Amino acid sequence: MAAYTLYDTTGLILHDSVVPEENQALLLACDIGGTTVKMGIFTAEPQPRLLCRTEVPTRTEDEGVNILPDVAEAARALADDHGLRFSQIRGAGIGCPGPVLTAENGDYIVNRGVNLNWGVKNVSEEFRTLTGIPSVIALNDANAAALGEMAAAGASGTVIMVTLGTGVGGGIVIDGSVLSGSTGSAGEIGHMPASPYHPLLESIREQDPSFPARSDLEYYASATGIIRVAKAALKTTGAASVLRKPEASDLTAKDIFDAAREGDALAMSITEFYFDTLGSGLASIAGVIDPDLFLLGGGVSRAGDFLLDGVRRAYRENVFHSMRGTGIQLAVLGGDAGLLGAVIPLLQED
Amino acid sequence: MAAYTLYDTTGLILHDSVVPEENQALLLACDIGGTTVKMGIFTAEPQPRLLCRTEVPTRTEDEGVNILPDVAEAARALADDHGLRFSQIRGAGIGCPGPVLTAENGDYIVNRGVNLNWGVKNVSEEFRTLTGIPSVIALNDANAAALGEMAAAGASGTVIMVTLGTGVGGGIVIDGSVLSGSTGSAGEIGHMPASPYHPLLESIREQDPSFPARSDLEYYASATGIIRVAKAALKTTGAASVLRKPEASDLTAKDIFDAAREGDALAMSITEFYFDTLGSGLASIAGVIDPDLFLLGGGVSRAGDFLLDGVRRAYRENVFHSMRGTGIQLAVLGGDAGLLGAVIPLLQED
Repeated sequence: MAAYTLYDTTGLILHDSVVPEENQALLLACDIGGTTVKMGIFTAEPQPRLLCRTEVPTRTEDEGVNILPDVAEAARALADDHGLRFSQIRGAGIGCPGPVLTAENGDYIVNRGVNLNWGVKNVSEEFRTLTGIPSVIALNDANAAALGEMAAAGASGTVIMVTLGTGVGGGIVIDGSVLSGSTGSAGEIGHMPASPYHPLLESIREQDPSFPARSDLEYYASATGIIRVAKAALKTTGAASVLRKPEASDLTAKDIFDAAREGDALAMSITEFYFDTLGSGLASIAGVIDPDLFLLGGGVSRAGDFLLDGVRRAYRENVFHSMRGTGIQLAVLGGDAGLLGAVIPLLQED
Repeated sequence: MAAYTLYDTTGLILHDSVVPEENQALLLACDIGGTTVKMGIFTAEPQPRLLCRTEVPTRTEDEGVNILPDVAEAARALADDHGLRFSQIRGAGIGCPGPVLTAENGDYIVNRGVNLNWGVKNVSEEFRTLTGIPSVIALNDANAAALGEMAAAGASGTVIMVTLGTGVGGGIVIDGSVLSGSTGSAGEIGHMPASPYHPLLESIREQDPSFPARSDLEYYASATGIIRVAKAALKTTGAASVLRKPEASDLTAKDIFDAAREGDALAMSITEFYFDTLGSGLASIAGVIDPDLFLLGGGVSRAGDFLLDGVRRAYRENVFHSMRGTGIQLAVLGGDAGLLGAVIPLLQED
């Protein structure tokens, strides 16, 4: 798939001037979040071009019973508004929060999508009935994002998408298939144990022994984590720093990366700690699955090349020599990754 | 496959009284080590029964040019000696040290099997020519062991075999296929970064700051690793211990586990450190691939239930809650795992 026609740095490109042929197969993508459902209609061939898009609110009341009917209605309206025949939609991919299981008949079952107040829901059956779309698949939203970013990167083999946001999440794709794991927890890398051995952590703990020397990766390597470490560092040292301001409670990950980029010594020691902890985490992942590519997304990834340079260096210092060349890149689709990813498994079915 | 007819605690059971039918398919298994080649002939159906076995020395001189001819000759002699028709052997599986690649035509290429002094060798082509066996596959010896132990455990899904010996190795099988990774290094878990945060390590480092606070998993969790930690602990504390004997240079992992089992306080603190470090390592692996089962093999696994109880407890304390129930078992085939594993991919071809 030639990626350049699909997206730019602001997300997926809208090809609203493309008029599909009479019997050309179309695909519906849905990314159901806790507050909003993003939707789009794509061509399937020669590559998944986004023809039109819309959003509807996610009505989570009454056990989320309205969500799929709302999506079905909005999908019909979206097709109508853009002069597309709804019957040309041959498949729908639905990204949902929560673990997704496959039934024996091939239907996709969402097993308690907590943010949606769903119990155990057969998404395939319900959405097929609502829309008449013959093939309906569901997939976990983080995994959909991983598939979308992988397609955008033109990557093959084993790819792990690492999402650095409020928490640290991950999705692993091996030869085009999402790795779910025995309990649906594969790629839950934020919960890998971590006990970083680093001078900054030592100096924090000398002053404040209650600061944990041992937790999980996301405790130190999420956006929340870097702020947590920065606040502890500010409290336990008298060093001057531009981060030391009255409104320190509003400190953001961006403030810290910006200050480090501008040479603030304390901020630099915090980002060094961050790179080392995350780079070691990626090296641990490499020791398990030896991926072809790491993709870094989520809010922290907006630190761009500064993040990338630091993490690449720390990764190389910590990983087994045979894997020093593994690619580490920034994810590019941002909030649109799940939309593209939702149709990728449908393309493979063709 | 009903595992009980295949092996007991001493390895694979020899079914030397089974007489295969005229046209029953037989399989040849070879496990090529640096000093010895283990070989066996198996039935393929209804399950891989070992009919006969032998060993030949591995002649590594002259770039290992004699190895495969020696194996071919020994295989013919083995069949003759047991009244088996060599032409009934439909497939051969060859476990080799080193990375194994697949050529476009499906041949298996060993890419510098260092212990064998091989360069890049097309094992499939050479062994087919030597023997006339139609299907010849090669696979990495650690991966063969993982496949064999997985078959013996009757396990499915994602299984990781962890070998706790001089080093720490691993092999990952997902839905019957070995995960190789982008550089053939998947499962190289001994090289995952490790910086254990543990009271024993802190007390060692208070007396001897040169003892590393940070290295890789095998530095602390191999058989060599536990001896290393024990020696450092003995040197940096005056505590009485049965491990403190004149010939401490001969200390073995078995001595340490035996002493801990008998209540020696210092030995117990060393094994607790060991369990915690290894259990955290397994929890990290779970955070990546969420396996169905961990299998522990290698010399350290002879510590049996004492090891298993300790590692299971530490794993549960460190892993994300959804994966607390993951099975951790001892490998059972020992040195025969690679022999059984070498024929497993051939069974799947049928």
